[in-house]
Amino acid sequence: MKFKISSEVEYQVHIPSTLILNIHALRTPYQKVLSETLIVNPDIKIEEFTSRSSINRYVRLQINELISFKVSYSAIVDTNFTLLSQHHTNENTPFVPIDGNIIPFLFPSRYCQSDKLQRLAYNQFGGIQNIYSKVLAIADWIFFNIEYLSGSTSSQTSAYDTITERAGVCRDFAHLGIALCRALSIPARYFTCYAFKLFPPDFHACFEAYIGGSWIIFDPTRLAPLNGLVKIASGHDAADAAVASIFGNVSCTSIVVNCDSLEPSFNPFFNNNAELKGLSYQAK
Amino acid sequence: MKFKISSEVEYQVHIPSTLILNIHALRTPYQKVLSETLIVNPDIKIEEFTSRSSINRYVRLQINELISFKVSYSAIVDTNFTLLSQHHTNENTPFVPIDGNIIPFLFPSRYCQSDKLQRLAYNQFGGIQNIYSKVLAIADWIFFNIEYLSGSTSSQTSAYDTITERAGVCRDFAHLGIALCRALSIPARYFTCYAFKLFPPDFHACFEAYIGGSWIIFDPTRLAPLNGLVKIASGHDAADAAVASIFGNVSCTSIVVNCDSLEPSFNPFFNNNAELKGLSYQAK
Amino acid sequence: MKFKISSEVEYQVHIPSTLILNIHALRTPYQKVLSETLIVNPDIKIEEFTSRSSINRYVRLQINELISFKVSYSAIVDTNFTLLSQHHTNENTPFVPIDGNIIPFLFPSRYCQSDKLQRLAYNQFGGIQNIYSKVLAIADWIFFNIEYLSGSTSSQTSAYDTITERAGVCRDFAHLGIALCRALSIPARYFTCYAFKLFPPDFHACFEAYIGGSWIIFDPTRLAPLNGLVKIASGHDAADAAVASIFGNVSCTSIVVNCDSLEPSFNPFFNNNAELKGLSYQAK
Amino acid sequence: MKFKISSEVEYQVHIPSTLILNIHALRTPYQKVLSETLIVNPDIKIEEFTSRSSINRYVRLQINELISFKVSYSAIVDTNFTLLSQHHTNENTPFVPIDGNIIPFLFPSRYCQSDKLQRLAYNQFGGIQNIYSKVLAIADWIFFNIEYLSGSTSSQTSAYDTITERAGVCRDFAHLGIALCRALSIPARYFTCYAFKLFPPDFHACFEAYIGGSWIIFDPTRLAPLNGLVKIASGHDAADAAVASIFGNVSCTSIVVNCDSLEPSFNPFFNNNAELKGLSYQAK
Repeated sequence: MKFKISSEVEYQVHIPSTLILNIHALRTPYQKVLSETLIVNPDIKIEEFTSRSSINRYVRLQINELISFKVSYSAIVDTNFTLLSQHHTNENTPFVPIDGNIIPFLFPSRYCQSDKLQRLAYNQFGGIQNIYSKVLAIADWIFFNIEYLSGSTSSQTSAYDTITERAGVCRDFAHLGIALCRALSIPARYFTCYAFKLFPPDFHACFEAYIGGSWIIFDPTRLAPLNGLVKIASGHDAADAAVASIFGNVSCTSIVVNCDSLEPSFNPFFNNNAELKGLSYQAK
Repeated sequence: MKFKISSEVEYQVHIPSTLILNIHALRTPYQKVLSETLIVNPDIKIEEFTSRSSINRYVRLQINELISFKVSYSAIVDTNFTLLSQHHTNENTPFVPIDGNIIPFLFPSRYCQSDKLQRLAYNQFGGIQNIYSKVLAIADWIFFNIEYLSGSTSSQTSAYDTITERAGVCRDFAHLGIALCRALSIPARYFTCYAFKLFPPDFHACFEAYIGGSWIIFDPTRLAPLNGLVKIASGHDAADAAVASIFGNVSCTSIVVNCDSLEPSFNPFFNNNAELKGLSYQAK
Repeated sequence: MKFKISSEVEYQVHIPSTLILNIHALRTPYQKVLSETLIVNPDIKIEEFTSRSSINRYVRLQINELISFKVSYSAIVDTNFTLLSQHHTNENTPFVPIDGNIIPFLFPSRYCQSDKLQRLAYNQFGGIQNIYSKVLAIADWIFFNIEYLSGSTSSQTSAYDTITERAGVCRDFAHLGIALCRALSIPARYFTCYAFKLFPPDFHACFEAYIGGSWIIFDPTRLAPLNGLVKIASGHDAADAAVASIFGNVSCTSIVVNCDSLEPSFNPFFNNNAELKGLSYQAK
Repeated sequence: MKFKISSEVEYQVHIPSTLILNIHALRTPYQKVLSETLIVNPDIKIEEFTSRSSINRYVRLQINELISFKVSYSAIVDTNFTLLSQHHTNENTPFVPIDGNIIPFLFPSRYCQSDKLQRLAYNQFGGIQNIYSKVLAIADWIFFNIEYLSGSTSSQTSAYDTITERAGVCRDFAHLGIALCRALSIPARYFTCYAFKLFPPDFHACFEAYIGGSWIIFDPTRLAPLNGLVKIASGHDAADAAVASIFGNVSCTSIVVNCDSLEPSFNPFFNNNAELKGLSYQAK
């Protein structure tokens, strides 16, 4: 499934600062980047890097002058999602031993204080046996109990706030999903993406849970079709998978994001069909 | 410098649970494990693992019966520390580009909410130019302003609590040091260890800051000699480098830890010598 | 209904300190103190006082020596409770304009951050029309969702913690009940008391909601009979109605509390009778 | 000293709601209201009330229609401040026993968690003996360490946040001052007012500390002349002395506030004169 994605972000630099951007489409066995361009205007030296612990594609900019600049990225990406059948919830999850690379996603993180949510998570979801059904129930609970409210939260808001304040944006929904999963000993991680015709247009965030040996995507906001996501990154939470991490003082003055299908036959799949309660997509 | 270390920890299992222990001495170019034994009594199957992102030596135990058990570890370890000279604070830190494996230690984590401490850190320590002096000032500030008070904190206490409540244990001291460093864009990580003649005997925690291309150890508690540490692990914070992570319900009923020098000539080096203000040890 | 109550509390003074105790039985039209004695040993000058805004009976002790001392209080108290009928939930609450003395109990307070619980309270209980039924639903929800767990909380724990961490003691249960009521614009206040045969013996805390012109008692712990309470005080929360407020450094070393009925015919009324779901007592 | 004050506030009602306004100039022995008018447009029934525990002048509006409305208040007020001499800090504070009406201002409240700030307050200010000097040091510390930053905080921000995040508005400055005082066993309360030529024009908030038998005003923002304040209310904190308390869903769409002197000879007294470090005004 081919998508054309683009983002244009403008920044104003107030003091010499370092900016780490994470806006490139990820390359995975299930997602091919067919072409891409990154332009910084005015021209600032950029430095791409990855880390031992992830395949996220970071870009670092060191800006020493107090300027405005614009970062423009665009790409054609081919994604390949597998739809989980409606009956998946009835199947037994195969036992897959959790390896050392998965275990870090069981631990609490900056915005996902799973250690504080254990009793609540167990009381609310502990009775559901099938792990896939359990995570679906978490995503549904968030959708029905947390109000999507632009501007209601800040970059410091965490799952511990959202579980009580009951409002937030995609980032907060994802953090709460992750925290509830980890509280139930289900590995879970943050997932950023471009999303097909997301309205209002912006970067999007969902979460992935590790079930039966695969990372499966859940979107508790239900704002984007589950087969219309172009993955940027995964991480423990928005602390290490933010679109932008700023060291210094830089403000974002404008942001324009687009994600369109290049295939007329694309059939966006939403999770709000009552008959299909609980469907989810898997990244392979 | 050879040390004999040992730990005996007893647990009581209340429901079938998974326990991840991180009590083995680490193997690094600067620390050799000459011999070691791990005994679990009664015999429970253990599974050792590491992860792509660290060399920490984790052990997993799956305990399905509601039993008590004891984990006994002992080892002979040869460590090799380099003392930083008193004049290091006057030297310029060589510029070393931060690579992708270091960057994760700039981000806030569960117990080190550096994003919330930026103004405070900048106001308090921003005027100090030399990075090494800056981190020493952080460690000294913690030593003089936070009261070491056993039992004053819990496993949920974080740097954001400690900066105001002004009391804690080694773990809290380390978390605060890490958070203040990261708030100033200095990579920092949690460091667990056995510590020579620590009183009362227990596992110990310090922090490392990444300065001039090296991870340098700081101990804001000043409870252990800086050349008497046998490293167990490093991590973002106690979330991924805890001595024990419990998934289920297991209580720790007893803990006995020892760390003795095997060399009569060992000269424990403490940081409380007024003439040597700010000395620190480096892990190489 | 006559009760014999007593409390013996021992303190150790570490620095010259002021102690405000609030352990006397309250005098109200529905509660007569037939006799009482207060003994401080060794003899320390005590000073009784009340305030313009409440009838709570405070005692102040200024202790300038680093001593141990014991405060012993005992009293015979005659209480007069009115049982609300089971059908009260079907009646319309009479409209009673809220006067200026009640309004302060609508505002958030130290341990009852009702401003942070508004969406949650509205989603959970907003659909219940009858105010009395609404508060009963709150008390029931707390009973079924919060675990009574001695030692799980501290004097800093507030309703905002308890709503997520789902464990606490009577004080935490009361704070959560108050916060949820206020979040729904129902005046609510903290209520401390001696409680008939409470086990383990201690001071007890419940909450009162202002419904139809009366303050009605609710006990979400269900640990004491609703007709076996001897009121000590009411307040915004434990900040102004604590049994002891310490200014300085004084530790409590022992506490013995008793509350017995003096009438053989006393029929303790518990709220755990399935047929009587939702009964509550009213302080008149 | 005569001032002409006025405020015009516009609201949009989203659901039937109750609004409690607290914008009238207070009547005290040191502040006379010579004339005043309150107009609500369109005409909504208003209900004035006070409470047993304060002389604050509250107005209640019950708005059942989803309308916009404007509240316009204006008054001529004659205030009478006493300037404390610069040498006051050298005098001994007379011993005045604290009565039951003052004691509530020693307890922690919603936005002033003094119980969490005790060690910090004691370490920072405990060494200052004279109480007046101690509170001046608190106000100065806030002025020098907290950044006045419009929009940096919300109605949920409390002293516990501000002590670490180091930014806020007048309300946050006042809350922190109160919390630090109470942490040191000095009674302190929230103080709202109209302020002479405050820029940008708005309602203002300071705090009062109870020293030597008087409530003395401190303004850690230094934004208004200490002899140019027209008092509206005092309270435990913004929870019970807010300009507007909303029960329902009402948004404020516009706010215009003015405070001018009617006396050409008025000599505004600011606290930023280096020679007059620590001057403060007293409400009598």
